[in-house]
Amino acid sequence: MISSDVKYRVIYRDTDKMGVVYHANYIVFYEIARNEMFRNLGIPYSELEKMGIVTPIVEIESKYKAPAYYDDLLTIRATIKELPAAKIDVEYEVFNEEGRLLNVGRTRLGYVNMERMRPCRAPQELIERLSQYF
Amino acid sequence: MISSDVKYRVIYRDTDKMGVVYHANYIVFYEIARNEMFRNLGIPYSELEKMGIVTPIVEIESKYKAPAYYDDLLTIRATIKELPAAKIDVEYEVFNEEGRLLNVGRTRLGYVNMERMRPCRAPQELIERLSQYF
Amino acid sequence: MISSDVKYRVIYRDTDKMGVVYHANYIVFYEIARNEMFRNLGIPYSELEKMGIVTPIVEIESKYKAPAYYDDLLTIRATIKELPAAKIDVEYEVFNEEGRLLNVGRTRLGYVNMERMRPCRAPQELIERLSQYF
Amino acid sequence: MISSDVKYRVIYRDTDKMGVVYHANYIVFYEIARNEMFRNLGIPYSELEKMGIVTPIVEIESKYKAPAYYDDLLTIRATIKELPAAKIDVEYEVFNEEGRLLNVGRTRLGYVNMERMRPCRAPQELIERLSQYF
Repeated sequence: MISSDVKYRVIYRDTDKMGVVYHANYIVFYEIARNEMFRNLGIPYSELEKMGIVTPIVEIESKYKAPAYYDDLLTIRATIKELPAAKIDVEYEVFNEEGRLLNVGRTRLGYVNMERMRPCRAPQELIERLSQYF
Repeated sequence: MISSDVKYRVIYRDTDKMGVVYHANYIVFYEIARNEMFRNLGIPYSELEKMGIVTPIVEIESKYKAPAYYDDLLTIRATIKELPAAKIDVEYEVFNEEGRLLNVGRTRLGYVNMERMRPCRAPQELIERLSQYF
Repeated sequence: MISSDVKYRVIYRDTDKMGVVYHANYIVFYEIARNEMFRNLGIPYSELEKMGIVTPIVEIESKYKAPAYYDDLLTIRATIKELPAAKIDVEYEVFNEEGRLLNVGRTRLGYVNMERMRPCRAPQELIERLSQYF
Repeated sequence: MISSDVKYRVIYRDTDKMGVVYHANYIVFYEIARNEMFRNLGIPYSELEKMGIVTPIVEIESKYKAPAYYDDLLTIRATIKELPAAKIDVEYEVFNEEGRLLNVGRTRLGYVNMERMRPCRAPQELIERLSQYF
């Protein structure tokens, strides 16, 4: 299993007139956490791109349990539970400073060969580097 | 059943460096379609608010089938299949100008009493106005 | 002179916890109006790109006079007052449905040769097509 | 003079199809830096709100000198050069990791009494706490 936490401070831009964080922004928070997780693994996306791979989102799920507010310092946790062979499934939890779980989610990413813009298998190099965690 | 289409022209802001519409923006497209559907029903959200109700998102699902590009004129279709008593489930389809289905999704909205900020049942007035469609 | 109006309906995503449209979103509204103006001229940006040109923003100014609210149907007016030789200066006005002027702005766009990624002069074809308006 | 730096890592959401950070996002970066500056001063916005004050943007200026790219770790510097009596003028500089200046900007914020929603003078408490820096 791989897991990684990142902090994010909520700004005005993230909120809406209900006074809470606008729902679509959690999907962006997932990207922040996913990026940092791959960076922590020593495999920033920019390196995946150098391997000729992009990893578009193919599925998203998100459940909202409690609101986040302006100026909240959120913790966004990304977790990979299985070695990502054909797809990368990442799960997310968003907590506020009191440790309350505000949101849970999941994204599925595919592997796409940038040259042919077609789905492909995970690069061997990536699998090798990830397999030590599983 | 209730169904409503809205057009949306993709701008630079919607795209990312992969050259396609960034995935979280589809969740925003859903809001555009949902707003227009309620407006077409003669019940804009602003009227729900006057009834003392807000309808926060409690769940989102989205599946990405093909990319949208800059300048694409998208059609976003929102559909309600069942009379929304305790929750409002809205389904979405996003098409490009060639009629290709790019994305499907679903949001679940709850009813919240604005004064007490607690979940509540749908206002009777809303149910009456919607029930003619089911 | 060239001038073009486009309508935009404010959604939740555009607002912030002050209950009004978040200031940076007006800069996005400018893009919507600019896109439609070029489209109305028969020169969508996608065609500029085919000429090998991109037009990055080099300067922005914006003045906020009155707030826009959720569900407002805004009119965003883009105007070019001078034939855009070395730079394209576009001015903007944003009105609400009552015709109240909410915001005025200006963007300056440069011409960049996509191949060399360096500033360049306006393509002759573009100047010819625009010059009929001045 | 008051000055404050904050780091920001560019994500996919911030970029557009030109492969660079979309121009309107710099205005959001300004908000991040402004928030942190006020927090560092011991006066987070949430405290201003408790004084019954909101500070809407009344003017923005931004000049783009060089692009920022995906995964860049930006430094956003906010500076207040004069004691903000009737208005708060904040200046911004955005640097990449090589220390290259990518963007400069300025925002003017007004003081608005939340109760009457009308312009007002700076709260005495705020002026006193800021005056030690000038």
